[in-house]
Amino acid sequence: MKNKKLRDVQSEPDHRNIPINKVGVKDISYPVVVLDRAEGRQHTVARVNMYVNLPHHFRGTHMSRFIEILNKYRDGISTLNIRDILDEMKKQLDSETAHFEIEFPYFITKEAPVSKEKAKMEYTCTLVANSNEDYYTLEVRVPVLSLCPCSKEISRYGGHNQRSFLSVRIKARDKIWIENLIEVAEKSASSDIYSILKREDEKYITEKSYENPLFVEDMVRNASEKLMKMEGVLWFSVESENMESIHNHSAYAQIEMDLRDKR
Amino acid sequence: MKNKKLRDVQSEPDHRNIPINKVGVKDISYPVVVLDRAEGRQHTVARVNMYVNLPHHFRGTHMSRFIEILNKYRDGISTLNIRDILDEMKKQLDSETAHFEIEFPYFITKEAPVSKEKAKMEYTCTLVANSNEDYYTLEVRVPVLSLCPCSKEISRYGGHNQRSFLSVRIKARDKIWIENLIEVAEKSASSDIYSILKREDEKYITEKSYENPLFVEDMVRNASEKLMKMEGVLWFSVESENMESIHNHSAYAQIEMDLRDKR
Amino acid sequence: MKNKKLRDVQSEPDHRNIPINKVGVKDISYPVVVLDRAEGRQHTVARVNMYVNLPHHFRGTHMSRFIEILNKYRDGISTLNIRDILDEMKKQLDSETAHFEIEFPYFITKEAPVSKEKAKMEYTCTLVANSNEDYYTLEVRVPVLSLCPCSKEISRYGGHNQRSFLSVRIKARDKIWIENLIEVAEKSASSDIYSILKREDEKYITEKSYENPLFVEDMVRNASEKLMKMEGVLWFSVESENMESIHNHSAYAQIEMDLRDKR
Amino acid sequence: MKNKKLRDVQSEPDHRNIPINKVGVKDISYPVVVLDRAEGRQHTVARVNMYVNLPHHFRGTHMSRFIEILNKYRDGISTLNIRDILDEMKKQLDSETAHFEIEFPYFITKEAPVSKEKAKMEYTCTLVANSNEDYYTLEVRVPVLSLCPCSKEISRYGGHNQRSFLSVRIKARDKIWIENLIEVAEKSASSDIYSILKREDEKYITEKSYENPLFVEDMVRNASEKLMKMEGVLWFSVESENMESIHNHSAYAQIEMDLRDKR
Repeated sequence: MKNKKLRDVQSEPDHRNIPINKVGVKDISYPVVVLDRAEGRQHTVARVNMYVNLPHHFRGTHMSRFIEILNKYRDGISTLNIRDILDEMKKQLDSETAHFEIEFPYFITKEAPVSKEKAKMEYTCTLVANSNEDYYTLEVRVPVLSLCPCSKEISRYGGHNQRSFLSVRIKARDKIWIENLIEVAEKSASSDIYSILKREDEKYITEKSYENPLFVEDMVRNASEKLMKMEGVLWFSVESENMESIHNHSAYAQIEMDLRDKR
Repeated sequence: MKNKKLRDVQSEPDHRNIPINKVGVKDISYPVVVLDRAEGRQHTVARVNMYVNLPHHFRGTHMSRFIEILNKYRDGISTLNIRDILDEMKKQLDSETAHFEIEFPYFITKEAPVSKEKAKMEYTCTLVANSNEDYYTLEVRVPVLSLCPCSKEISRYGGHNQRSFLSVRIKARDKIWIENLIEVAEKSASSDIYSILKREDEKYITEKSYENPLFVEDMVRNASEKLMKMEGVLWFSVESENMESIHNHSAYAQIEMDLRDKR
Repeated sequence: MKNKKLRDVQSEPDHRNIPINKVGVKDISYPVVVLDRAEGRQHTVARVNMYVNLPHHFRGTHMSRFIEILNKYRDGISTLNIRDILDEMKKQLDSETAHFEIEFPYFITKEAPVSKEKAKMEYTCTLVANSNEDYYTLEVRVPVLSLCPCSKEISRYGGHNQRSFLSVRIKARDKIWIENLIEVAEKSASSDIYSILKREDEKYITEKSYENPLFVEDMVRNASEKLMKMEGVLWFSVESENMESIHNHSAYAQIEMDLRDKR
Repeated sequence: MKNKKLRDVQSEPDHRNIPINKVGVKDISYPVVVLDRAEGRQHTVARVNMYVNLPHHFRGTHMSRFIEILNKYRDGISTLNIRDILDEMKKQLDSETAHFEIEFPYFITKEAPVSKEKAKMEYTCTLVANSNEDYYTLEVRVPVLSLCPCSKEISRYGGHNQRSFLSVRIKARDKIWIENLIEVAEKSASSDIYSILKREDEKYITEKSYENPLFVEDMVRNASEKLMKMEGVLWFSVESENMESIHNHSAYAQIEMDLRDKR
């Protein structure tokens, strides 16, 4: 048998006496299916990192097994079965701990506010889980519109506004829908934004955002207020990056809060 | 009626007397379905640019119509119907010319050479068409392995090798499968590469590439020889970018050939 | 002598009879000095591509010589000496043609419009030259502000606005300052933008852009009008990419014009 | 006086009672001068993030002051004066805490191992400091070469190798040269790599790496052994990302160690 002849260098002992925190595969692009609240399932393309620990006495891990596991689970990855993936990793790689990270574009059919025209809107999701922790971490990066209160206040007319990315990251144990986090972000901005807008929608959004001017600081505070009340959230971090229309850099704000202390 | 009241600023005349070559939407990320030789259809996530020309007497175009067209065709985009998309763009935008560009990751289930283990392998495809031209342009970017002939020749053992990206771009009128272009690239390198490899596969690829050392120049020449004979190819460009393992920059070569002159 | 013993595989003949259009080094990051209208010289960090052609009878080129030439000229690269670099490439690589591309961030000390506070503003420049052509190509990518005329017209108040990138590319033989192209772009937008702004400046820019609403189409037409009159410009392309505040994609327009036909 | 009339919206009270962890400017690109062990000073282009905290009773911060501070210190930023920058931020922004992050390409003139030809080699550095902590964090990302021990062992000849990025991150209080961390990384790999190599150098590196095969796990262990002995290091993290030549994804390993517990 051919494998008999091939020395398994990775399984040989290592004498440097240094355990490795994480070893595995990084930045593999893979087609996956994720849960979709409206339509059940959604096809997307993910970027995946999968790591295990390596005790000090082993020299190397077996990289191909990570891909076998990814391939096995690719038809349905969610917060519901992520612990099964971690368990499978620990078993197949014979490790004490396992770490799984997946980032993917997630699309929702979104209706324009007045014309009701529909198109797909993209949100960037990241799901992370570690077998050492009894929760998962879910982040959604949501593009929104922010209009500057200072600019509106001091100017005779207008108010500078821009695309912002409001990112909501939570730790939770029970199922929380991606859609719920998107809603938190979109309701915390001067206006949410759309893939398709007719003239009457453009009028609506322009006026809505002018009536609702918000600093980068206001948006993260607004989102925090909502997350503090959301059931199942153990911890959260909210950050907003405003791609300022009057500068070539971003305005940024971040709030982080551990709710386990407060409940 | 609300639309009656909203002035259509875009449709107003422009007096600068300068026609616009391309106007439209850029960098929209959208879920699409593309043709797949093995499985019929494949879900992926694309980045799309859609432009039309604008005669000198109009001030602006209507951006929302591009998204309506993209949404209409998203369930099946291919070299077969790309001219229908261009026609629809010309009609809906009332333009003389239309231009469509779509880039997406494309996955093929690929078998390891010895163990026959299967996993998905990613290739980056770009399809471009313009109503002024009677052909489409298709590019596939293929990751491969290159081993340096000079390094092998002058060294007592070993030979530096690296991941390379061999990109094949063609102009054609009739259907050419993405898979055919991938095959050209993979057969032009020191070895093709895989998402999953067991030890016996790793041995096979290491030895194969050592037996088949190729410069960046050799790889583009190999691919050119194949493309010169491929039916339906009107023009091609082949480029290879070797992410040198001995440097922090790439070695690069490119060949471009118009076969319409030669046939 | 050690070199005697090392076979020069690259210089050996090749029998496939296919000449190579471009071969060389790509994506090398290098510290360089460029000309600066205000201060004489400016230190920056560039990304460089250098290629030559390779006749069909040679198998490979000598990659190290490109780096020697880059290192020799790094203390002063400009439109003034770029033809010397091409000549040196042709000579050292023994080639018929040479191609040089350099991209770098370029900084100008810019004064805020009212407070006159000063800070460095970044522009992205690309300079390309090919020994087959009797001109160089210079591009500057300029961040600006655009305010939508349609949104302003149809809304009771406000008008959506955003950061846009207005890129001006020209072909010329004689010296044209980067600063002149930046000026074309900044004067073609709803407002130029700044690294530092006090409240009185923010008021000024908010009002100025509201008074000067422009579509993506208007901005490229404005820039074209200026370039058509600029001395020494043989050809130009202007494109604008508006990072729409109401969408998660860009609005785009491009105009290209060959002035050699018209002069 | 014009400022009298402009309401300072940012300084107004906020009633949501939520303090903000970080608020400021992000991703500003700026020309800076950093310390250089060999040449005293080095010009480069940095990407900078600057944040302060915001107590719950203030609505917003004053973004222009961050740029004033960056502009003031840009002629010399180092681990030596980073605490001065933090102090200035706290003072000018009237905050309790300050956070400063700067990333820049750093170049060293490096001699080829045999020919002794010289060229600039790029390393990516990140320096982070927070006024809440009595140390700074310095990271250097070093491109190196790794050759796979398994591939070498099981194959009749050759061994797959690739460009890897070995990143060394430390926390320290006293001055540690960037050059020292680069040395740790370069000595932990199968071979270091170069911008310029003549044939005799290529032979040297090919043979050296073949004689010194290392897994991604070996490289982070090698670097850890060196960092455990380096004076002044309070904590370190080492990670390696091998851009596998046989795959289109990376192999990855990471070790993190707090030496404050052990000393």
